[in-house]
Amino acid sequence: MNDMIYGLHPVIEALEAGRTIDKILIRRNLVGDNVSHLLQLARSARVPVQRVPPEKLDRVTRKNHQGVIALLAAVDYCRVADVLPTLFEQGENPLIVVLDGVTDVRNFGAIARTCDCAGVSAIVIAERGSVTVGADAMKTSAGALNYVTVCREHDLTGALRYMRDSGVKIIATAGGASTAHTDADFTGPVAIVFGAEGDGISSDVLKMCDERVTIPEFGHINSLNVSVAAGVVIYESVRQRLADGQKPC
Amino acid sequence: MNDMIYGLHPVIEALEAGRTIDKILIRRNLVGDNVSHLLQLARSARVPVQRVPPEKLDRVTRKNHQGVIALLAAVDYCRVADVLPTLFEQGENPLIVVLDGVTDVRNFGAIARTCDCAGVSAIVIAERGSVTVGADAMKTSAGALNYVTVCREHDLTGALRYMRDSGVKIIATAGGASTAHTDADFTGPVAIVFGAEGDGISSDVLKMCDERVTIPEFGHINSLNVSVAAGVVIYESVRQRLADGQKPC
Repeated sequence: MNDMIYGLHPVIEALEAGRTIDKILIRRNLVGDNVSHLLQLARSARVPVQRVPPEKLDRVTRKNHQGVIALLAAVDYCRVADVLPTLFEQGENPLIVVLDGVTDVRNFGAIARTCDCAGVSAIVIAERGSVTVGADAMKTSAGALNYVTVCREHDLTGALRYMRDSGVKIIATAGGASTAHTDADFTGPVAIVFGAEGDGISSDVLKMCDERVTIPEFGHINSLNVSVAAGVVIYESVRQRLADGQKPC
Repeated sequence: MNDMIYGLHPVIEALEAGRTIDKILIRRNLVGDNVSHLLQLARSARVPVQRVPPEKLDRVTRKNHQGVIALLAAVDYCRVADVLPTLFEQGENPLIVVLDGVTDVRNFGAIARTCDCAGVSAIVIAERGSVTVGADAMKTSAGALNYVTVCREHDLTGALRYMRDSGVKIIATAGGASTAHTDADFTGPVAIVFGAEGDGISSDVLKMCDERVTIPEFGHINSLNVSVAAGVVIYESVRQRLADGQKPC
């Protein structure tokens, strides 16, 4: 089944990012500078554009499509076993984000934005029990998913084992760990694991982690939103790497 | 008009936090350990509980109330001019979060959670053009708003001037600033200002700021979610204060 991207700006972003788009549906009579820009981009990329009545768009999605829907294959998932050797070959210092059971699409989108901003090498998710990286995720990621590498793994613990064997340190962000996230060393090749809000990281995955860290909490609720927690730890990694004299990815 | 909190756990949190509740509506026949716990808390706090048919609850709110609604006054807003002197008198080192034009309730809720976790002294919002701190905000804050001090100001720039005059450094988080957030000094009394996604901080507010900082971004989209950005900068402040030997609030 085709996935889709909706909304004027997200579709422009997708075209600019060179995503493979099957077809773009635009509401009949929709005009404006942005629409002209989109049409030009589509022409350059040889993407067929179809003018349709509003009802047609509403039948494709009931979301706020703003008169523009791009039908495309879902995100081109990668595999850790393909991505990691390339990173090493290119002389990069991998910074990988592993999401275990994060299903909330808004949180996933916010994390993808953070990963784009912070220059994260790849996001790794499991094939089952993870968010669907479809149109909603693209929308909430503000287009970041056009740029961030997403690895989807049938066997998440196997992928973690592969990373460990390749020299990547696996750090779990888990409540109750005795080490603060600022006391862990993120300057080498590292994968940071985040679990779902509430459930946390599954025990199988936790067993594959070299270290556990906690974001210090001094309040009453002590439950950071998972996308905020990811932002805090990812940017601590960035801080350490910049302080270490490394160039960002 | 009464505000409300809905959902079993949020209402239990509110009772445990000592919030002033007018009345609790519970669905007729709703039972369970959590319900018994809630009834016990309500009895201790002398809060009247009314068993009602499901339709009655659905008339009060169409949200997912799980059979429990607490009717209460909205968050008890404070004023900076009242809160700040008390903080100084108590020997605290104020860490204040100012939100200029943040209207998305999910982002506000996530920021409130972060402020609770990080021990932030107070959140400051403007009377106009800000999020409504009602039942939705309480829900998305996972109860954190029961604990975090919220100052609502008719005159936000006036409140910032008052803070400056009291010795609080005002740091704006704004795209394009030349100073990285990690290079600013958050160890003294400080207020960190965040603007709305897209619009950023208004020029009037920006004029009142002593410094501007940016979270370094290395990607293509370069647009962090505002609650993530707040988490990153707030926890950088926490890191600096802990490294400085300060006790968390």
